[in-house]
Amino acid sequence: MRDEKKVSGAVIKRLPKYYRYLSVLRQMGITRVSSNDLSKKIEITPSQVRQDFFNFGSFGLQGYGYEVEPLMQEIGNILGMDQINQMIILGAGNLGQALANHASFEKRGFKIVGMFDVNPYCIGQVVRGIEIMHFDSLAEFMGRHSVDIAVITVPREHAREAADKAISLGIKGIWNFASVEFEVPKDVAIEHIHLSESLMALSYKIKENRASIR
Amino acid sequence: MRDEKKVSGAVIKRLPKYYRYLSVLRQMGITRVSSNDLSKKIEITPSQVRQDFFNFGSFGLQGYGYEVEPLMQEIGNILGMDQINQMIILGAGNLGQALANHASFEKRGFKIVGMFDVNPYCIGQVVRGIEIMHFDSLAEFMGRHSVDIAVITVPREHAREAADKAISLGIKGIWNFASVEFEVPKDVAIEHIHLSESLMALSYKIKENRASIR
Repeated sequence: MRDEKKVSGAVIKRLPKYYRYLSVLRQMGITRVSSNDLSKKIEITPSQVRQDFFNFGSFGLQGYGYEVEPLMQEIGNILGMDQINQMIILGAGNLGQALANHASFEKRGFKIVGMFDVNPYCIGQVVRGIEIMHFDSLAEFMGRHSVDIAVITVPREHAREAADKAISLGIKGIWNFASVEFEVPKDVAIEHIHLSESLMALSYKIKENRASIR
Repeated sequence: MRDEKKVSGAVIKRLPKYYRYLSVLRQMGITRVSSNDLSKKIEITPSQVRQDFFNFGSFGLQGYGYEVEPLMQEIGNILGMDQINQMIILGAGNLGQALANHASFEKRGFKIVGMFDVNPYCIGQVVRGIEIMHFDSLAEFMGRHSVDIAVITVPREHAREAADKAISLGIKGIWNFASVEFEVPKDVAIEHIHLSESLMALSYKIKENRASIR
């Protein structure tokens, strides 16, 4: 199945980048954008941008470009952002609480409905209106709520267990911050956040800049 | 300059991924790996993997593959991880503290040497041996320490100001978590973390999985 989709896979990876950049433009009150400007932001060629949008039926006009709002809507629909995704946060430490406080997720239809931890110190605390509950009450909570995504912000040694538990309770999306990879069933989607990759890329750029000064 | 490097730019982006995966293999005690296995993890073709490594002079052996440890070392050197990068965290809220507690950065040569905030509630607190200081003491601190990277974890409306201040004090690397983009001088490297892009990709995968069940 992966091989069949190889061509469109690269396009799919670019869609969130297009969406984010278009939302920045919209915020700035800009109503149209050229494939040239978009290509610079995404670091591909203008013709690749046009090809990407052509793939899902969006046509720019020569010398005019694309209308920001409809293009953003269209990409948002492809990404599933026409629906609300309900999320729970497993691990209510600093990272879990930082994500809960990240108001911009909600603007994009990602709604945090519960937070769970085992630490008696934080259970009962309220973060942006969400009370932190004990892990033991997760099954009961899932019986009452429709949850799409579990955010894994527990320490890495508990990440797998937390994800397995969420999956056994019917969750089909895992957003993993635990910097450890694990396999999930085929019908479960997973995205890993690897902050160290970005940090290494930064290290490379710094080194390259230093070398070009010498 | 960007155009000259377009070919190698894509390779550079893959290096942190290679490095991370090789470090997972090493941790598991695995000493060699095929281009085929690597290609699956990075989601490119095996011949692209071989081409990437060939570019910087690493040759695999037919039917044997690559030695994990030397390859990892070599990629680490290219990425600048043979040197220590000293970091300060600007914004000691939940996210800043979560990053300070992320022990794995230090293993890769990224050492947090200072944390700064303006909130009197957190100033004086100690996170993993680092005392949180007031922003006003940043200039004085920079006079005493050699700092390579400023991590921007202040609220987005203060991100630009914090980065500008760090740059004016001589910092050449910005790791930006503030989900707002800004320009920096040419000799300053910047990496943005856009968590929402990963979340949108997850939303897409969940939607796609649901569609394939129907």
